[in-house]
Amino acid sequence: MVPDIYLNAIASALGGKIEQNNANNLHQPQEDCERIVKKTGVRGRTIALPGQFTSDLSCMATSELLRKLNTSASAIQTLLVCTQTPDHLIPGVSSRVHGELGFPEECLVFDINQGCSGFVVGTQTVTALLRSSSDSAVLINADTYSRLIRPNDLATRVLFGDAATASMFSTQPPGLRVIYNRCFANGNGYDAFVARNSATRIDPDHSAGIYMDGPGILNFALHVVPEAIHQALKANGLTIEQIRLFAFHQANSFMIGKLTQKLHISAEQAPQNCEHLGNTVSASIPLLLLDHWQELKDRELVMAIGFGVGLSWGVSLFEYRSDH
Amino acid sequence: MVPDIYLNAIASALGGKIEQNNANNLHQPQEDCERIVKKTGVRGRTIALPGQFTSDLSCMATSELLRKLNTSASAIQTLLVCTQTPDHLIPGVSSRVHGELGFPEECLVFDINQGCSGFVVGTQTVTALLRSSSDSAVLINADTYSRLIRPNDLATRVLFGDAATASMFSTQPPGLRVIYNRCFANGNGYDAFVARNSATRIDPDHSAGIYMDGPGILNFALHVVPEAIHQALKANGLTIEQIRLFAFHQANSFMIGKLTQKLHISAEQAPQNCEHLGNTVSASIPLLLLDHWQELKDRELVMAIGFGVGLSWGVSLFEYRSDH
Repeated sequence: MVPDIYLNAIASALGGKIEQNNANNLHQPQEDCERIVKKTGVRGRTIALPGQFTSDLSCMATSELLRKLNTSASAIQTLLVCTQTPDHLIPGVSSRVHGELGFPEECLVFDINQGCSGFVVGTQTVTALLRSSSDSAVLINADTYSRLIRPNDLATRVLFGDAATASMFSTQPPGLRVIYNRCFANGNGYDAFVARNSATRIDPDHSAGIYMDGPGILNFALHVVPEAIHQALKANGLTIEQIRLFAFHQANSFMIGKLTQKLHISAEQAPQNCEHLGNTVSASIPLLLLDHWQELKDRELVMAIGFGVGLSWGVSLFEYRSDH
Repeated sequence: MVPDIYLNAIASALGGKIEQNNANNLHQPQEDCERIVKKTGVRGRTIALPGQFTSDLSCMATSELLRKLNTSASAIQTLLVCTQTPDHLIPGVSSRVHGELGFPEECLVFDINQGCSGFVVGTQTVTALLRSSSDSAVLINADTYSRLIRPNDLATRVLFGDAATASMFSTQPPGLRVIYNRCFANGNGYDAFVARNSATRIDPDHSAGIYMDGPGILNFALHVVPEAIHQALKANGLTIEQIRLFAFHQANSFMIGKLTQKLHISAEQAPQNCEHLGNTVSASIPLLLLDHWQELKDRELVMAIGFGVGLSWGVSLFEYRSDH
């Protein structure tokens, strides 16, 4: 029999500085800043301090998770870090977390490179690994995109925040039981979101940093995300109304508004966190789940929807189980 | 019942240029070069051409794999690329391969960041994913470390070669049936192999590139690798003599010689490929399996042993099944 897998708990760590989207920080007229805030819904973002790297935020979030669960890293056999902004190309962020926090020697450790669909991708991977070979796993979602933003590229600068989450998965309740998980990709959209001159490929015609085709990604998301949600509902014999919480990747308020409007999802069903955090890449969904964890009641359903760079997207469906 | 998983076939693509470890290339006296070749066993290495990136080698190897199996990418639901030298930090190499070769939309796609233990890590991950949700998966192991080598650091420059492999895994024979897989890590060795100034962490006190603690890694490998092999043999009730082929990660001839000597493994049981390829990181094991694939007979046992950066290490055990 295939064992059930539960997301037991989440903890987070935010970049140490808050950057408001105002005239002072953006060097734009205050009127334009207010327009940007109104359109994106992002009032401010948490940004990593100068000496604060993805591995630091990852260690902080994981320490908090272990403290919260009153457990030790030494009992965990799988450690995955989903990031696109590692400290170094070699080794992965997961190696540093493993050493710093005392994970055991018999432990599967690697970084996943995925962006805004990284929580769903990570959930699918962790679920498969737990079913196959171990009892508990930590999935970290951590990025410091601020280090790859071109300072004058307002379109991306106003959106992204730096944060990490650490999520404990195991074969034991309580928590969010994984019911369903599907991931999708369309590599033809590879160029829609690229960090140029960021690794081994150097292009002297471009300055280093993130290039985003905003309208292209919006069109893509409005097309594929509702389809993936309907497919998930159908596969599980459910309707929109039966989902207690839709945890959309927090791309920005405008995009989430368009998606919920198209899907007839109420604002109560689809809360947001990007007003003060910005788009925190693959950490945005677990940050949202953390915000609303205490409100969940036994057997309520939660759907997580990731989408973005790659292009890639995916849906996880969970059932909250309060019983031990 | 847990389905069996098979590694059905492997294909490869090598960097387009051969660099010999000679006086002309290394700018060292010929006598010193001969000493280096004798010690490391690496006579020459394949190096990526100026316009040839990890994603290019990955696409080449995967195209060859699909041709060899007379199949199409559209039938494959999982695509993982293990690399530490992606073209860009964002998106992953796997996104480019997905788009270029026409993988289907319903496909789990991500990059794994792991080094010389990446084939074992990848095998464990792919095996779990196939058992959980899909029928076939491609695992790519690809790196172009040459782009991160500091030109004057002879200790690393003489060792590393650029290459990619693509491996097809599925729930159907023939091929190498996965019997056993274990991965280990010790993040306290994080600093033993680091590519400084390669991603988001910038350290003005160091020039960019790979820094290797060669003796430290040798000591680590001589300690943990024999232990992991003995553990794998014991768990499966086997002895060294019963293994037809030990596919050691091809760090260099000196290290493999030390390991086989300590383990009493014969030279015939542990062939090498680093003389003309160098250390091809996580591609070295599948390249070696490819070299010896045709020699395997039904029910013969193959052990793959990865170790390196992280630090991390692992063992996969396979049984060759010739029947369809």
